[in-house]
Amino acid sequence: MPSPKTQPTRGMRDFLPADVRKREYVIGVIKQVYERYGFEPLETPAVENIETLMGKYGEEGNQLIFKILKRGEHEKTGEADLALRYDLTVPLARVVAQYQNELPKFFRRYQIQPVWRADRPARGRFREFYQCDVDVLGSRSMVVEAELIAAASDALVALGFNDFTIRVNHRQVLTGILDQAGVPRDKHNDALMSLDKMDKAGPEGVAKELSDRGVLNDSAVKLMCFFQGLAGVEHAMGMVDLGDASNSRAAYNADVLGRLVEFIGGHEIGASGVDDLRQILQFAKASGVDQRIKLDPTLARGLAYYTGAIIEINVADLAGSLGGGGRYDNLVGMFLGKDVPACGFSLGLERIIVVMSERGMFPPALVSSSADLMVTIWNEDSIGESIALGNELRSHGLRVDVYPEADKMGKQFKFASSRGIPFVAIIGDDERAKGEVAIKNMSSGEQQSVKRNAVADTLRQAFGQPVGEADDSIKPGA
Amino acid sequence: MPSPKTQPTRGMRDFLPADVRKREYVIGVIKQVYERYGFEPLETPAVENIETLMGKYGEEGNQLIFKILKRGEHEKTGEADLALRYDLTVPLARVVAQYQNELPKFFRRYQIQPVWRADRPARGRFREFYQCDVDVLGSRSMVVEAELIAAASDALVALGFNDFTIRVNHRQVLTGILDQAGVPRDKHNDALMSLDKMDKAGPEGVAKELSDRGVLNDSAVKLMCFFQGLAGVEHAMGMVDLGDASNSRAAYNADVLGRLVEFIGGHEIGASGVDDLRQILQFAKASGVDQRIKLDPTLARGLAYYTGAIIEINVADLAGSLGGGGRYDNLVGMFLGKDVPACGFSLGLERIIVVMSERGMFPPALVSSSADLMVTIWNEDSIGESIALGNELRSHGLRVDVYPEADKMGKQFKFASSRGIPFVAIIGDDERAKGEVAIKNMSSGEQQSVKRNAVADTLRQAFGQPVGEADDSIKPGA
Repeated sequence: MPSPKTQPTRGMRDFLPADVRKREYVIGVIKQVYERYGFEPLETPAVENIETLMGKYGEEGNQLIFKILKRGEHEKTGEADLALRYDLTVPLARVVAQYQNELPKFFRRYQIQPVWRADRPARGRFREFYQCDVDVLGSRSMVVEAELIAAASDALVALGFNDFTIRVNHRQVLTGILDQAGVPRDKHNDALMSLDKMDKAGPEGVAKELSDRGVLNDSAVKLMCFFQGLAGVEHAMGMVDLGDASNSRAAYNADVLGRLVEFIGGHEIGASGVDDLRQILQFAKASGVDQRIKLDPTLARGLAYYTGAIIEINVADLAGSLGGGGRYDNLVGMFLGKDVPACGFSLGLERIIVVMSERGMFPPALVSSSADLMVTIWNEDSIGESIALGNELRSHGLRVDVYPEADKMGKQFKFASSRGIPFVAIIGDDERAKGEVAIKNMSSGEQQSVKRNAVADTLRQAFGQPVGEADDSIKPGA
Repeated sequence: MPSPKTQPTRGMRDFLPADVRKREYVIGVIKQVYERYGFEPLETPAVENIETLMGKYGEEGNQLIFKILKRGEHEKTGEADLALRYDLTVPLARVVAQYQNELPKFFRRYQIQPVWRADRPARGRFREFYQCDVDVLGSRSMVVEAELIAAASDALVALGFNDFTIRVNHRQVLTGILDQAGVPRDKHNDALMSLDKMDKAGPEGVAKELSDRGVLNDSAVKLMCFFQGLAGVEHAMGMVDLGDASNSRAAYNADVLGRLVEFIGGHEIGASGVDDLRQILQFAKASGVDQRIKLDPTLARGLAYYTGAIIEINVADLAGSLGGGGRYDNLVGMFLGKDVPACGFSLGLERIIVVMSERGMFPPALVSSSADLMVTIWNEDSIGESIALGNELRSHGLRVDVYPEADKMGKQFKFASSRGIPFVAIIGDDERAKGEVAIKNMSSGEQQSVKRNAVADTLRQAFGQPVGEADDSIKPGA
């Protein structure tokens, strides 16, 4: 019986074959899209020196890092010197510092690997989960932001999503807004955390929280007026639903830009952020992804290392985001001693899979069987012939299961059926004598005898594959 | 400058893009072969409860397990409750116990994931490395052993290996040999460790070690006579070199079987092991892999959990093995309370890559560039057009890099060159006016102007791809 002893550890998951196939499908599509954007694959160890990670994710992050005990005689000290990867961004920054002379000046990399966080497990929140990151290092150009947005959008479209919204904001714009509202710098982080809840708490809830966090009433009123103005525009344009990517999106974004210019005025840092947003929209228009973008000045995102644009992708039927990212021009400097501009985006594989499963977005073929055909075993004396047939069909590119034991034929058929294997081959005494093989279609029940040397073609025909030569797709160098 | 702070942690590796491509190529080939054998993918968490792993790998193994500190208020205790996966076999046994009602009666799974061991790093020995395992659960039939051997062999052949030897032995045969030589049971493990060194130490070295380990001289002499007899046959048949897979292999194996029957005689356990070996050879003959098999009664393999056949694959130019495996009928029982027969084989990805790199076995295309084309940026005003061109070419299935900044053209060309990107697109003022794009071949230096709407076809032609419709290979469901 299953027991606590045999369950995977808390918050982590075993992936049985059908799960792995779903995950590999999603990863495969994302990789293919990222490669089309010229991104190159990078992999880093699951384990990092503990100093590499500590202090990079804020106090809460420090608590959630899995720490590895020293080994050998030092194990008794109870100290940790290593830790499990917490995200893919900090390892990237370390890699860029380490291999700066080997990497291209503009380094476009993708990385799809698991990360570990000792979070409280909940629906859709795991302690081991995959991130799919793309980052560009070495340029401050907004071409980078636009390309990252287009790549993430293309990946989601390739997976079958068409109702997502890409929310874009800018850290400097937030600084400008808060400064102009008279929020003192030491209250900016508090104010950002409140603003980030606009979606859930609404303007009044946010106003109350602002005052609870000690933001002066006058500032809170200014902020609320600004954000209520934005909400009014959105409402007037019928864009209450996140999913609505109508033509009014461009007009809305233009309106938001105008209001930002007005509110931020001559505030230098803020105005430069508004310029960045304007460029991102312009470049995104060139790749046609602008229709999916919604400027959202309430978007803050938690991570401390962002310095410029911040991006988040949402769908209506998921509370969290499908992915997020932004510019972090100072992180590499923490390892290298000199800054390297950087911007990245991370798709959340687990959430994408949750939504795709709930919506039935996986291609049906993915959940089919593991083999095209099962070769049965007639009796102890014919095992060799069954193995030889299996081997021959494999050389023709077919996926073949050889039943391992000389069980009763009915039992063997039942096994093939239960696994959804579409065809079964039988080499009985009669077939043997005639140099034939019986092929049974497991769904129709039909059975036909074919000459031994015609089995591969018969099956390839049944699967709609080209008939003829043995398949050589896995020859060396292919 | 690179500093200790930015290196990967001791014994682990960062994989830059060229490395990842090599690894993915090898993994892809192995997966494809394993799928042809009807194996299904399984993945388990990197982290296991510490009790799951402790005591499964012997005392030395316990020392090499990376242990994870408890979290939160328990961190101070210095105790570990979790640990990093040490191999893929113990997690498989746990999974089979946990999901026994969901898994098929015969479960054929492959698993390709990293494992972690706190070993002393050395050439080819890492603290994080990948294993590629195939296992069949649920059957005691030697069809399983034969299929595993054929699958591992096919995988190596598909990668371009043709000089490997598959050494096969049997734990029960070893028991029979040692019993018949009069080695007391409590000295069997010592004797096995000595015998395992036959390759390196030779018969005399082994004889000396046997006596050092307290095996009586009379027993040691009997053993040495038996093994020197085998070595004599091997020498006589010209099979001194591991790589020699001549027709004499079948004769040699038949001779070894005969000598085993003679030496083991009526020893029941041993004789049943010899029968297994005979069947494995017979079934392997059906799939043609018997030519690569060499019965080797000196093969012992360290792992304590093997109960039947043991297998190891070697090539002449590698001290260790390319992979190994065997039957372990009792391991699942440690989790489930009742035994489930099992047999598996693990290919060592890291060693395969080492040998393939040294021998130059990777297809040259793997080390080529990350993009088919780079779109340059003529000036600040034309950024949008460059992005739009890039986007269009991507929709035709091309891998396109857009240079992010309006640098001098020479600088942009140099960047493309240094990355090995074969083509560069330029939309200068002239081209813009005429509705054309200039395409520069970076190796020949030739430049031609083509109509904007003919760029995709021109490039696809250059890459030998079918010309015409936009590529839709990454549509949902494809």
